[in-house]
Amino acid sequence: MKNMKMTIAYDGTRYKGWQGQKSTDATISGKIEAVLNKYTGEEIHLIGSGRTDAGVHASEQVANVHLKGEFLPEELFQSLNHYLPEDIAVLTVEEVDERFHSRFSAEGKWYRYRICTGIKADVFARKYVYHCPQNLDIEQMKLAAAHLVGTYDFTSFCGNNHLKKTAVRTITEIRLTRKADEILIDFYGEGFLQNMIRIITGTLIEVGNGTRTSTEIPAILEGKNRALAGFTAPPQGLILQKVFYKGD
Amino acid sequence: MKNMKMTIAYDGTRYKGWQGQKSTDATISGKIEAVLNKYTGEEIHLIGSGRTDAGVHASEQVANVHLKGEFLPEELFQSLNHYLPEDIAVLTVEEVDERFHSRFSAEGKWYRYRICTGIKADVFARKYVYHCPQNLDIEQMKLAAAHLVGTYDFTSFCGNNHLKKTAVRTITEIRLTRKADEILIDFYGEGFLQNMIRIITGTLIEVGNGTRTSTEIPAILEGKNRALAGFTAPPQGLILQKVFYKGD
Repeated sequence: MKNMKMTIAYDGTRYKGWQGQKSTDATISGKIEAVLNKYTGEEIHLIGSGRTDAGVHASEQVANVHLKGEFLPEELFQSLNHYLPEDIAVLTVEEVDERFHSRFSAEGKWYRYRICTGIKADVFARKYVYHCPQNLDIEQMKLAAAHLVGTYDFTSFCGNNHLKKTAVRTITEIRLTRKADEILIDFYGEGFLQNMIRIITGTLIEVGNGTRTSTEIPAILEGKNRALAGFTAPPQGLILQKVFYKGD
Repeated sequence: MKNMKMTIAYDGTRYKGWQGQKSTDATISGKIEAVLNKYTGEEIHLIGSGRTDAGVHASEQVANVHLKGEFLPEELFQSLNHYLPEDIAVLTVEEVDERFHSRFSAEGKWYRYRICTGIKADVFARKYVYHCPQNLDIEQMKLAAAHLVGTYDFTSFCGNNHLKKTAVRTITEIRLTRKADEILIDFYGEGFLQNMIRIITGTLIEVGNGTRTSTEIPAILEGKNRALAGFTAPPQGLILQKVFYKGD
């Protein structure tokens, strides 16, 4: 058995996310599994570092797969890129230790949310930003974000409270940067709940436009109720930038 | 009469170019004229710095329009961006001297052609590059490009020899840069013939992949025959980066 690790970039616009309840052709992992199955003739179980929602993008998602056959990383790399559609690219394939598991071995993740506050989004990036033409007070958003850095029960910021046993997660950093007419929000943490980054982003936007104040955040966390937090920012502004492993 | 100058960015993917033989809704200038006509109630004649082919993009096209009414640049900016589709953005609107003419006043243009030579184009930039997964010898391409810098009759590199009285043009610089798995070709010149940059790019690619040698270029120029030059590189890799005016 060979354990193959791969890094993958995708434009999530036309997919139902990384993985669905059932693996289908409309998911990114489903597309990759179909190509691997056809090329290797093996039953493929692709393990992703985590799911991304429908419409969310990735610049470096990580997945691994166990193969019985003697396939070389280079041939998998070539055939995957040849047969995958142009909105899914395999960036690297390498053989790794059999114990490597893209989800359990992951030590952290970096997500970026892009908000364009200008009157019009950049025509070339418009599918990868959330166009929100409002005056957003980034200093207030930073104050609000600071309340969310640390280890908390993020039930109020989770889109599906039936899914996980615990909603306790650790956010190690939230960094807000203004770049021309965009606000970039970089999230670093061990792992995130479903819709968590998008709900945090929606809440930060509501702080930025004055609908809420940053001082409300601790009470939202303590309330453990999704209805207390802000709206779920749309998926197209979100990108999984990188998954971190020991030794990275 | 007010003379309004505007800079415009567009993703040309779904348009029949900047302007057609007849102005239609399927062209970028047609879209802008329709919005201006509706907003001002005036008959609109938009003057572009030059045409871009179907499928070609722009980060800073320039156009101007003469208006009878007392419109402010800011209101035109707002209404244009509000009513134009998301793949056309007006970046600036300013009132300029009545003698300013976006085509006749232009002193130069900068176009960029992006070639991706990797196995797969960047998923986020794929609509703005030409994916050409070949080994291209950039040093040979630079030697070929050097033969084209200067003032020449570019008949061999023109897609429509019935259009212009003269095919003599001046290219001031062609700069080739490798950036990861992309080759960028930056063209600077006073003005370019129809398809000229795409035919030069196709010819440079044929030099880069060994189909031709750089030393053939002078004979191609002298032959004044389109059939002597290389293929017309596809439009999606081409972007009008900037139009230069006195004082820029």
